[in-house]
Amino acid sequence: MSQDRFIDRLARALDGAGTPACVGLDPVLERLPESVRAGHWEPARAIGAFCKGVIDAVAGRVGVVKPQAACFERYGSAGVAVLEHLVEHARERGLVVILDAKRGDIGVSAEHYAAAVRHMGADAVTVNAYLGPSTVEPYLDAGLGVFVLVRTSNPDSDAVQARELAGGTTVAGMMAGHVRELGRTRLGSCGLSDAGAVVGATKASDGAMLRGLMPEQVFLVPGYGAQGGTADDVRALVREGAGSAGASGVVVNASRSVLYPGGGGDWCEAIARAAGEFARDVAGVIGPG
Amino acid sequence: MSQDRFIDRLARALDGAGTPACVGLDPVLERLPESVRAGHWEPARAIGAFCKGVIDAVAGRVGVVKPQAACFERYGSAGVAVLEHLVEHARERGLVVILDAKRGDIGVSAEHYAAAVRHMGADAVTVNAYLGPSTVEPYLDAGLGVFVLVRTSNPDSDAVQARELAGGTTVAGMMAGHVRELGRTRLGSCGLSDAGAVVGATKASDGAMLRGLMPEQVFLVPGYGAQGGTADDVRALVREGAGSAGASGVVVNASRSVLYPGGGGDWCEAIARAAGEFARDVAGVIGPG
Repeated sequence: MSQDRFIDRLARALDGAGTPACVGLDPVLERLPESVRAGHWEPARAIGAFCKGVIDAVAGRVGVVKPQAACFERYGSAGVAVLEHLVEHARERGLVVILDAKRGDIGVSAEHYAAAVRHMGADAVTVNAYLGPSTVEPYLDAGLGVFVLVRTSNPDSDAVQARELAGGTTVAGMMAGHVRELGRTRLGSCGLSDAGAVVGATKASDGAMLRGLMPEQVFLVPGYGAQGGTADDVRALVREGAGSAGASGVVVNASRSVLYPGGGGDWCEAIARAAGEFARDVAGVIGPG
Repeated sequence: MSQDRFIDRLARALDGAGTPACVGLDPVLERLPESVRAGHWEPARAIGAFCKGVIDAVAGRVGVVKPQAACFERYGSAGVAVLEHLVEHARERGLVVILDAKRGDIGVSAEHYAAAVRHMGADAVTVNAYLGPSTVEPYLDAGLGVFVLVRTSNPDSDAVQARELAGGTTVAGMMAGHVRELGRTRLGSCGLSDAGAVVGATKASDGAMLRGLMPEQVFLVPGYGAQGGTADDVRALVREGAGSAGASGVVVNASRSVLYPGGGGDWCEAIARAAGEFARDVAGVIGPG
């Protein structure tokens, strides 16, 4: 098959960086460096300038960035315009872009959302499949990668995702089965699928079970670092025998620990340093360690 | 309590219109009247002009409109800017606005989305609670009404929502329990809650069960008309003994059958006529009929 699938582009980007690390772009006005806030009257422009600096600082150190749509949408159309520019800039810098928008709707509305992600220029999007597995297909049909919400790291997610179904599995396990089924016909030459899953790092107890249910899925793993996920948690999610970042079956995200590293000096340099450390940490999880 | 809750504003709007009917703003470029398409080069402006006409045509006939965010987001920041103007215009015309955005994220991201809905100016938003019931709270805390996805009308939703849990209920029933719990402390003077639920009209078999589980919830009911929902389906969802539109516990949405009524003549008049018929139909469901 000559088509260049999302999953193959992702594998190349991870192998190019030598790490499955991903930096989350979750800008919060109150936490921006003083010099950035002072330079911009409009909040949307301030977070845009900050994120452009972050992209330039992390390019080459990681292969993937994950903008959080909510951080931009809170500033309305002005924020969305900034997000569009940032996605373009990230792709120009050779980064794969996973839009963390957690979209989910039925029928033609799902097609509209897929068109919105394409318009934005992102490579992939996070998707909520509570409305049924077929509601994920329009994104895949549009050539996008998807990461379907399966198991998240917030404590309260247990009240839905950990509930047991008659017959033995959990709601998360049922969702995992749907994701695997969706992904079966969308395998890249790397052997992994365009249909991935969001699996939180702080739920490693479920990790082995979910890896068993989804052998061909890349797991987008949020919550590393500031949110409590550790290298051991991630290790439980990595595919057995994976010899490279691209084959590891994980994309491990950190946001706050990279964006707001603290300490003095030039903020771009501090972020570049934090991104480098994070990238090495995560590379160690899949490598000989 | 002196605070004017969403749910009380909604009840007044429904009683003012004398019907629990809601018109969905789901504009699709290909279906716009020829005269509207011919008058605008940019798609986002064409759908904006059309929806402004729809709002003017339906105001006074219904009390609520429900813009579908995806239809606007597919045109990027330009589409979102149009949506912002339309929400403002609808509220100026006295309409309550439910933003159909199906948002759902954790922690601070949920707060950002709530801020985005406030920025947009909408009164309420549809929310996906797969990530846990507490992820709905930021919207309520921001003073917004919510309609949590419980049971949708697309056939494929069964593969998630109709799955049986150990202990007897279904995934949808479990979600209904969470919604009732969320709504308990957020009751308006009308006796209903700021926390409502999305319950599809084409799943009336579940209707009585879900009404029993959520006595204080308003059900946002999509799928009336073009999508196959009928008056009988809606009847199963109405609160027992409801004597008025505001107390009925339902908001019944139609989109395509009102927006694209077919036939010749002036499109604004045709839409006004279709909205009037739909409003009377639905009023008949709760009235003496």
